[in-house]
Amino acid sequence: MRARCEALGVVLRPHLKTAKSIDVARIAADGGQGPVTVSTLAEAEYFAAAGWRDILYSTAIAPAKLARADRIQRDHGARLLFVVDDKEAAATIGKEAASLGARFGVLIEIDCGEHRSGVEPASAELVAIADAIGACAPHLDLMGVMAHAGHSYAFDDPAPIAALAEVERFAAVSSAELLRARGYPCPIVSVGSTPTALFAEHLSGVTEVRAGIYLFWDLSQLSRGICAEEDLAVSVLATVIGHQRRGPSLILDAGALALSKDIGANRFMPDAGYGLVCDAVTLKPLGSLAVSTVHQEHGNVPIPDESWFARLPIGSLVRILPNHACLTCAAYASYDVLRGGTVTEQWPRIGGW
Amino acid sequence: MRARCEALGVVLRPHLKTAKSIDVARIAADGGQGPVTVSTLAEAEYFAAAGWRDILYSTAIAPAKLARADRIQRDHGARLLFVVDDKEAAATIGKEAASLGARFGVLIEIDCGEHRSGVEPASAELVAIADAIGACAPHLDLMGVMAHAGHSYAFDDPAPIAALAEVERFAAVSSAELLRARGYPCPIVSVGSTPTALFAEHLSGVTEVRAGIYLFWDLSQLSRGICAEEDLAVSVLATVIGHQRRGPSLILDAGALALSKDIGANRFMPDAGYGLVCDAVTLKPLGSLAVSTVHQEHGNVPIPDESWFARLPIGSLVRILPNHACLTCAAYASYDVLRGGTVTEQWPRIGGW
Repeated sequence: MRARCEALGVVLRPHLKTAKSIDVARIAADGGQGPVTVSTLAEAEYFAAAGWRDILYSTAIAPAKLARADRIQRDHGARLLFVVDDKEAAATIGKEAASLGARFGVLIEIDCGEHRSGVEPASAELVAIADAIGACAPHLDLMGVMAHAGHSYAFDDPAPIAALAEVERFAAVSSAELLRARGYPCPIVSVGSTPTALFAEHLSGVTEVRAGIYLFWDLSQLSRGICAEEDLAVSVLATVIGHQRRGPSLILDAGALALSKDIGANRFMPDAGYGLVCDAVTLKPLGSLAVSTVHQEHGNVPIPDESWFARLPIGSLVRILPNHACLTCAAYASYDVLRGGTVTEQWPRIGGW
Repeated sequence: MRARCEALGVVLRPHLKTAKSIDVARIAADGGQGPVTVSTLAEAEYFAAAGWRDILYSTAIAPAKLARADRIQRDHGARLLFVVDDKEAAATIGKEAASLGARFGVLIEIDCGEHRSGVEPASAELVAIADAIGACAPHLDLMGVMAHAGHSYAFDDPAPIAALAEVERFAAVSSAELLRARGYPCPIVSVGSTPTALFAEHLSGVTEVRAGIYLFWDLSQLSRGICAEEDLAVSVLATVIGHQRRGPSLILDAGALALSKDIGANRFMPDAGYGLVCDAVTLKPLGSLAVSTVHQEHGNVPIPDESWFARLPIGSLVRILPNHACLTCAAYASYDVLRGGTVTEQWPRIGGW
């Protein structure tokens, strides 16, 4: 992704919401501490304390969270960037920042079609928000715009993803142009999702790209043709704890809490279940075995015939490739790092909010 | 549930997999420390360290976990009970227990129709497992049988649930009778799920009931008519962070990680989404607002009209009644205890494995 962004002429601002790990963030920045994206103030605090300085908190900020955000800036000398998509929210945040004697950077979020959040590109509403932010100087600095083409996950074909990448790019760039015409310099034009970053034909006018899942990959990405199976970096180690003859199926000690109940891959890979079952050592898929049912701590893996009972006796280890790594990883306090089949390190991660 | 079990003439062995909290476990036992059920060794350790002595680990045990289980027994003077549903697994576990110089109680798991795990009631296979356990004396003590009618969640009507309670009861009792005829006393005949415990007509021959979700309730239970709305004990505090005019919808800072992606309630309550949106103070539902879409940290709540924007301005607090409390609570390290609208205590909980 670093090479890709370099080729596109944009800065990479990796989204750390999946990994939530200092060690992974260092790899993402080739050992450095460049700009990053986070999804919680807990992450912002964690990365700021570890030396990161340029942190985009990419969920719209609630006014009551500003005091903590201000402490993160003051305690660690970091600079937080917020996103705003409402002019009244901008005014409220500006007022709160003023009462704290704080100063924050702000991006205006542009809705490029997903309709999750954000304002219409290059709209009157956008200008009104910019003016509301401008009126809060010096406590808010309008730094630019951001767009996120989350609807790129509706496709498993590079052509429509490339088309959406252009929609995302144009939404952000045209919005920035409108704001510049009104006198706001907008040094940051931020776009991103892993698929659009990879399939965009060009990113002219964009200054930075946000992407996160590329750090790990998962079945959701694999199912959409965004990565290859051998790219998947995280797996869940599980033990066969039972042989169910009525089925027949293997029972694993990895259920809903260990894997999550996300089935985002299944739109394009209907048999992915809650994860694909792999050899614990080689990480090669075992036939097409998948965890098809989960209870809190049980995972059931249907098998074509009982010969699998001999192949995977009770007590055997397997590894599960997760359906959606962001949610699966959230169940764990750390990563066991495998090098050549051996756990050589444990990397902590930051959970909670 | 205590009163109900007393009326049924059985011991209550609360399942702590939902609450994972010492404070909640104390309430369940009316201040005491009776028998409990857990779903992870982390829970077993946690409750043993806090003084609980009779702990059923109700997921089939993997042989590699016995060393840790043995330490829990030795360090805290607790007695762990395992479940087994395979004769080879019984032999492997017995061998491992012998090599540790350990002694564990064992229940044989009976499949009363859910086909998740367990052996056929009163079957030759059951007897073979009992003999395999018996051959491991004194390292394994066959203490009896357990059955779990998890398929009771397929209904929202007391009549079929009562019928399944009888299936569950009969599966366990007939299996215990067969084992007694073979010379195994089987002092424990354990059944349970919250719905079957509540709707069983009688539990003749049963010695104990396992139930857990009754400690909190959730929309999955409410949707099946097992509890009333005012019974729900846990909620997720969230903030309105955006007003999406294309929709229209409210955007909350509670998404897939804060709520989980479980939609178990939706079979009988299709509009439950990922949780119902309530007033933050009164906990009364706000119209029929529900979180219909979740991203990692965003929850979208469709609204019938934009008048809701004035009613719930950005920065407003709401409370979400979770779809499935077991999964939602797993995202948090502690509970904030509300008394009269004020957080008076924080109760820790034990996550992980």
